[in-house]
Amino acid sequence: MRDILISHGAPADKAGIVAYEMARNSLEGTYTHGINRFARLVKSVDAGTIVPSAEPELIAASGGMSRYDGHMGFGIVNAIFAMDRAMDLASGHGIGLVALARNNHWLRAATYGYRALEQGYAAICFTNTTNNMPAWGAVDSRLGNNPFVMAFPRKDGKHMIVDSAMSQFSYGALEVARLAGRQMSVAAGFDKDGRITTDPSAVLETRRPLSAGYWKGSAMSFMIDIFSACLSGGLPVADIAEQEDESALSQVFIAIDYRKIVGEDEADRIAERAIGYLKGSTKAEGTKEIVYPGERMLRTREENLREGIPVDERVWSEILSL
Amino acid sequence: MRDILISHGAPADKAGIVAYEMARNSLEGTYTHGINRFARLVKSVDAGTIVPSAEPELIAASGGMSRYDGHMGFGIVNAIFAMDRAMDLASGHGIGLVALARNNHWLRAATYGYRALEQGYAAICFTNTTNNMPAWGAVDSRLGNNPFVMAFPRKDGKHMIVDSAMSQFSYGALEVARLAGRQMSVAAGFDKDGRITTDPSAVLETRRPLSAGYWKGSAMSFMIDIFSACLSGGLPVADIAEQEDESALSQVFIAIDYRKIVGEDEADRIAERAIGYLKGSTKAEGTKEIVYPGERMLRTREENLREGIPVDERVWSEILSL
Repeated sequence: MRDILISHGAPADKAGIVAYEMARNSLEGTYTHGINRFARLVKSVDAGTIVPSAEPELIAASGGMSRYDGHMGFGIVNAIFAMDRAMDLASGHGIGLVALARNNHWLRAATYGYRALEQGYAAICFTNTTNNMPAWGAVDSRLGNNPFVMAFPRKDGKHMIVDSAMSQFSYGALEVARLAGRQMSVAAGFDKDGRITTDPSAVLETRRPLSAGYWKGSAMSFMIDIFSACLSGGLPVADIAEQEDESALSQVFIAIDYRKIVGEDEADRIAERAIGYLKGSTKAEGTKEIVYPGERMLRTREENLREGIPVDERVWSEILSL
Repeated sequence: MRDILISHGAPADKAGIVAYEMARNSLEGTYTHGINRFARLVKSVDAGTIVPSAEPELIAASGGMSRYDGHMGFGIVNAIFAMDRAMDLASGHGIGLVALARNNHWLRAATYGYRALEQGYAAICFTNTTNNMPAWGAVDSRLGNNPFVMAFPRKDGKHMIVDSAMSQFSYGALEVARLAGRQMSVAAGFDKDGRITTDPSAVLETRRPLSAGYWKGSAMSFMIDIFSACLSGGLPVADIAEQEDESALSQVFIAIDYRKIVGEDEADRIAERAIGYLKGSTKAEGTKEIVYPGERMLRTREENLREGIPVDERVWSEILSL
């Protein structure tokens, strides 16, 4: 993957970061934003949507905050840069915020949470997207699903992290279910008569996926867009929607060096207590185990490290042809 | 209300803040956390759960971050203090974070968002609560509904703000619907056979309200608890649950002086664009208007300023008897 990116004009260092993180996304179970998406990424490079050699440019800075223009570089490379800068700022100010305008799709939101966790920082980060979800009460999609991450580290590496888009299901999940002939587990969107349905085909037809928590995910999505675009001086969903591709996104990265105000052991003890209590819940019928956010990934990674990363054969042969 | 609090041992300045904010909550339409709750607050003072004269104590500070112990003072007073401190820190560092342990219930989460908005700051704040919601896949309530706020100001005062608990409906909303003989508008929780239902009586019986967005609100709730308790060194939901009353909560206040990196006019233009796009959505059948988060409150306030704050007669006579 690295070599393919280089052969399409990417500098070696940036190509290496993108290849590594996309492979890691698949390793850790986020197949939709891993190797499966590599061919599409290369097409974006060829189309000029991604500018492989672009470097983020500092636009404004004050105390623990900075604002950058991503100049349409690799989404992953710019976003890692931004989270690293947020950690630098946090190491000086306790908390650091970097707002990034005009970045490409960062693929997996959790990547930047884990980036901070591995350095012992807590993090909050989020991005806007193109218009892919209707507001509550609306028919046409004028909100993004705007993924949101909260991440808190543990000393033993069994980090806690939520990576949640504001739609109940992604289009990818709807398509997988349609192909498998399955209904979604809970309400997924609207059918052509405006009724809420669990049928993925009906939702794919209307393009009216449901916001998570109905009006709640709708309102959260809007505020994530406002924070992303207003803090970075970048594009809101409204303007991203007018472009041909989903690009020039706006993103925010907050790193928190909590060890400056709370002992690492003290935070760890509190986390253990919260996890133990959660996992001690009485399970509903059909529930095998109650997991804390981030726990399932640890198992997927272990399994894939042991048995190899599953890759669809068509995806793999497409990559070999690039 | 101020005089009643003073007669129950509260210092005049703190009594004034609590009375003002509780009246304002009702003025702005959050009746459940306004005057309706005043008698209960006075009982908490009498019971010693709220220590009226307590002052927050600085436990640790570094750069733009501080951590306080609320010493079980008035939830509103301590939380306003904490958001004001976060703004002070943001005025020096761009972004400021205050974590507050051992505070009482802050009543309306949006209060602290508006506090920042009125000074021109963007804000994120959140709190944990007692155990009042099961994790996704669980029967017993081992999560809080943990309200979360994101707020961004506009120059004309028509601020944007989301104040969202992680449960789909509060117990208060379920009780109101049951009394009115209404079903909830969407899935609200589980009945005694473990099926998802819109029937408020069934959910009030099982005490299994649904997390907003199913597994999504469940995971977000857990992470809000972790951030609140670990950053403040305070109690997680697990420990709050063991107390008789819902007290000694953990809270986080983040203020962002965005004007240090983006022009106020530039942010305002972006917000106008996002609001215009959202409100231009094609309305679904039955939708009168698409509103942005915070818009409805403006109308309620205007109406109540014109026509008076509606207060239930039983609530009012209980207050007069205190």
